[in-house]
Amino acid sequence: MNGLFITFEGPEGAGKTTILQAAAEELRKNGHFVLATREPGGIEIAEQIREVILHPENTAMDPKTEALLYAAARRQHLVEKVKPALEEGKIVLCDRFIDSSLAYQGYARGLGIDEVLSINQFAIGNMMPHITVYFAIDPEEGIKRINANDSREKNRLDLEQLHFHTLVQKGYQEVINRFPGRFRTVDASRSIEHVQKSVNEIIEEALKTIRL
Amino acid sequence: MNGLFITFEGPEGAGKTTILQAAAEELRKNGHFVLATREPGGIEIAEQIREVILHPENTAMDPKTEALLYAAARRQHLVEKVKPALEEGKIVLCDRFIDSSLAYQGYARGLGIDEVLSINQFAIGNMMPHITVYFAIDPEEGIKRINANDSREKNRLDLEQLHFHTLVQKGYQEVINRFPGRFRTVDASRSIEHVQKSVNEIIEEALKTIRL
Repeated sequence: MNGLFITFEGPEGAGKTTILQAAAEELRKNGHFVLATREPGGIEIAEQIREVILHPENTAMDPKTEALLYAAARRQHLVEKVKPALEEGKIVLCDRFIDSSLAYQGYARGLGIDEVLSINQFAIGNMMPHITVYFAIDPEEGIKRINANDSREKNRLDLEQLHFHTLVQKGYQEVINRFPGRFRTVDASRSIEHVQKSVNEIIEEALKTIRL
Repeated sequence: MNGLFITFEGPEGAGKTTILQAAAEELRKNGHFVLATREPGGIEIAEQIREVILHPENTAMDPKTEALLYAAARRQHLVEKVKPALEEGKIVLCDRFIDSSLAYQGYARGLGIDEVLSINQFAIGNMMPHITVYFAIDPEEGIKRINANDSREKNRLDLEQLHFHTLVQKGYQEVINRFPGRFRTVDASRSIEHVQKSVNEIIEEALKTIRL
């Protein structure tokens, strides 16, 4: 594996998707070969699995069935897209990966981090990311950003949202405590320019210390 | 869990599917409530997952993706069909379950029994079968039965078949060695009447010692 595998993680509204695209552009400008991706990443089998997960009539889906399907789609995206790119020496930036399952399904949905970790370790084998950029943001601030175009008063849904986002963040904290060496946390409550700069620095540092 | 959960395992050609149906009839005649099933068991979500697994164009499917999909379909069939039947106190006879994945994918396909066990333990939780009837048959005899209506000369496919069936049986032996208390082995090379009698006795014994 000659490439560099970097994942972006964090709650909704933290800006990671926008910043991932900009980071990819910056790297390409500097002459690097980059794959910017997210699951299911246009992989036909992974798309089919995602259809099963998201089909509106599949209301009877058990949370563990869902977790296994996410792990299956992850495996296929990894094998067909991420792994070949890394073998070609590319820098792979992936929007959400194993830690999203651990934080959302393992912790916030209550399946257990260890349990969800075990099926994902089966799925990804030794292909753990070299580093993971964590976008830290206050849950209320994250929700504010998601709802920026929405002028509703605070209602029950928003309180549920806040409760769930708080759980997700606690989940990520648990995950970070388990893999402290892999995580780089950025304060995502700052302006997009500041966050972008921090992320670019993290990637530059990783290029120096990990790949070379 | 008031019911009795019995799985039938073994290589192809061992007669387990036929005997399972007859065993279910026998139990019903004796006044028991029985669910005779096999994955995906008509469960819509599990059928959808199976379609992804079996879709002829999905040739790029990674073996681990497939194993995760089988575990996902198993989970859903278990939650929607097996568990409710057991909670109603029924006797559940299931044609193939976790041990098929361990023997076929874990051992014969080389993914590793421990690895495939871990994702299946996630899938089934504490719902392991009370007992598992193993249909032991010589690989050559099993293949002979499968090809009974087929007058071809022995060709390369048959030799591959023999090699694979031998691997599957070795896989089952490994699995039996791990869960010796759960398995009841019947000699499936005998006449169907003899095998049926052995299986009925095993189930009667289980009804006395496990459920009551």
